[in-house]
Amino acid sequence: MDRRSSIAAIVRAVLAAGPLRRADLEARTGLSQPTIAKLTRALIDSGYLTETTAGGAPGHIGRPAAALDVRAHRAFFAGVKVTPDELIGVVTDLRAVVHGTAHVPLGDARTPPDVVAAIARLTAQLRREHPVGALGVSVAGDVDRDTGVARYEPFLGWHDVALAELCAEATGLRTVADNDIRALTEAENWFGAGADARSFLLVAVGSGVTSGLVVDGRVLTGAHGVAGELGHVPIDRRGPKCYCGARGCLEAVASEPALLRRVADATGAPGVTLDRAIRLARLGDPRVGEVFAEAGRAIGQAVGGVINLIGPELVVFSADHLDGFALLEPHVRAAVAEHAFGAAARAEIAVRPLPFEQWARGAAVVAIASYVASVQV
Amino acid sequence: MDRRSSIAAIVRAVLAAGPLRRADLEARTGLSQPTIAKLTRALIDSGYLTETTAGGAPGHIGRPAAALDVRAHRAFFAGVKVTPDELIGVVTDLRAVVHGTAHVPLGDARTPPDVVAAIARLTAQLRREHPVGALGVSVAGDVDRDTGVARYEPFLGWHDVALAELCAEATGLRTVADNDIRALTEAENWFGAGADARSFLLVAVGSGVTSGLVVDGRVLTGAHGVAGELGHVPIDRRGPKCYCGARGCLEAVASEPALLRRVADATGAPGVTLDRAIRLARLGDPRVGEVFAEAGRAIGQAVGGVINLIGPELVVFSADHLDGFALLEPHVRAAVAEHAFGAAARAEIAVRPLPFEQWARGAAVVAIASYVASVQV
Ligand SMILES: [Zn+2]
Ligand SMILES: [Zn+2]
Repeated sequence: MDRRSSIAAIVRAVLAAGPLRRADLEARTGLSQPTIAKLTRALIDSGYLTETTAGGAPGHIGRPAAALDVRAHRAFFAGVKVTPDELIGVVTDLRAVVHGTAHVPLGDARTPPDVVAAIARLTAQLRREHPVGALGVSVAGDVDRDTGVARYEPFLGWHDVALAELCAEATGLRTVADNDIRALTEAENWFGAGADARSFLLVAVGSGVTSGLVVDGRVLTGAHGVAGELGHVPIDRRGPKCYCGARGCLEAVASEPALLRRVADATGAPGVTLDRAIRLARLGDPRVGEVFAEAGRAIGQAVGGVINLIGPELVVFSADHLDGFALLEPHVRAAVAEHAFGAAARAEIAVRPLPFEQWARGAAVVAIASYVASVQV
Repeated sequence: MDRRSSIAAIVRAVLAAGPLRRADLEARTGLSQPTIAKLTRALIDSGYLTETTAGGAPGHIGRPAAALDVRAHRAFFAGVKVTPDELIGVVTDLRAVVHGTAHVPLGDARTPPDVVAAIARLTAQLRREHPVGALGVSVAGDVDRDTGVARYEPFLGWHDVALAELCAEATGLRTVADNDIRALTEAENWFGAGADARSFLLVAVGSGVTSGLVVDGRVLTGAHGVAGELGHVPIDRRGPKCYCGARGCLEAVASEPALLRRVADATGAPGVTLDRAIRLARLGDPRVGEVFAEAGRAIGQAVGGVINLIGPELVVFSADHLDGFALLEPHVRAAVAEHAFGAAARAEIAVRPLPFEQWARGAAVVAIASYVASVQV
């Protein structure tokens, strides 16, 4: 490893698992002890790391070994998630802890210049209280992280927008752009499940169902920029048509609009909202309960298929709406258990909330990752 | 990289793409020119590599640059695939070219000691004409390559058999054991598609449908030893029950027994063979044609799902029976095209025969990989 990669490996390991003793760093990075001693010294001198002796495992006898931790306030990052309706922004420290949030509605101003101008306003707001050093922007669709070009954003109808470059010009900040679910998965990979698991599937359940995959510690990007499209995995040969044109995609059964359409059909009440559907299911309406059950089974079936293909250590369900997910969850788990093949069924399952700011935090984490990759000391 | 990894990287690059000039090796391995000069010298002196000046691109002017190639006969390898009926063995050179094959029927002798004794007999046969240096053995099911333990082989009913160790004792050869489709995928990764593609899906269509996945140049193994189980990806929520216990697996629709069952149902002719079914379809029997079409659509649907999840560069279909696959292929391709999402649809598709010896060659390639990893010069 060259010096820069070694520095990045050290900072990343301490971010994921700090405070860490130098001996633990050796095991985690594969670097030699002299290299670690030299580089951590330089990282301490330049304010990225700090030394703490507070540690010492319970029952530890004698002088506790010095441990290294990240100076989280050494740098701040802005993360912006672009949706068709609004921008959601957060400012985080180097450890991806959110220090502030802000929203900007987009209205009808959705052309690339409109949105870039709105991102600049939002970023200015986020910078008022924190010295932001870099910006991450995430959008749905096909984004090339290396070049920062949004090749296709289906909801805004964008094609080949040089998003990172335009935002960098408008804000004066070093900017990276990425696909939104990939950014969310990167956050999980750096600061969540990825700190322990080398391979996991992150399933985001909201108005749609989408996912990110980590294999061997890396987020899959797909040879052509597309990967993790769980919503368009076909699960039902005789199922309804999906908006993508194919028949029987998971989203055609388990997305929020599909679910509400079926609740409306089942109850004869058009225009039912998600809250109302959840209330009906809670009150024991069997027709509505069955719609949630079927959506849950569909999700579990698709996830069971991924488990059989990839064999991940862990599956994390991250839901917009935990109340709604609670109605799906037993059916999801039962279907996963039915479909997971042999030892692959040992994959752990975790459920956690997905507040909308998490998407923006994901964008900030992509900026953090890029920043860490270029630390020079 | 340490010396041994550097040597392995050089040998592997030359195996995959040789003859190679030293400058190409630099690009392919990331090693420095002095390291390459030193190690290739040592590899030539010890007979692994040879220097050739035969190259020179068409239109090249002047003295052709010296290129390196592997001395394929520097070492020979035995590969054995264990099936419930027989053992299939091959002997290959270092470049995985098959120099001989042999078969041993198993009869009712299927306990681990029986099979190990039969492997020893088969290996002795393969060694008669070639100085075999290492042995690779592959079986279906859950195999831990690192320890060489067959944790579960469903067709033989084996649990926790120390296969590599037992075979090493019985043959005196250094032995590795692996799952059969993973070994086949490793062969493709070292000597086939993997020489050009960093990520691909290999689909083996035979009596069942199974697959291997390569991501970032590495064969996926699964956190718990299971991955690539395309046959148990659920594709039809209302489909038939699979022998694994789940409903709607691909194999419940597209395996050879499932297909023949449906042909028998459709034609009212029980006990129809695959050859007969193919003949009927060829002769234009629409009922039989539709059974093949449905199996093809099911395979294409499952593969479309994998493409959306992984975004591979390439999908290779490898079929036992190219005549049979020809009946499936247009439906496979149409279903892949329907389900592949956005840019993921750019994944190339290739079709090739899968003679039974290929499985045994896969086992030999696992032995080659292990051998290359331990070359010392
Ligand atoms: Zn779709
Ligand atoms: Zn099955």
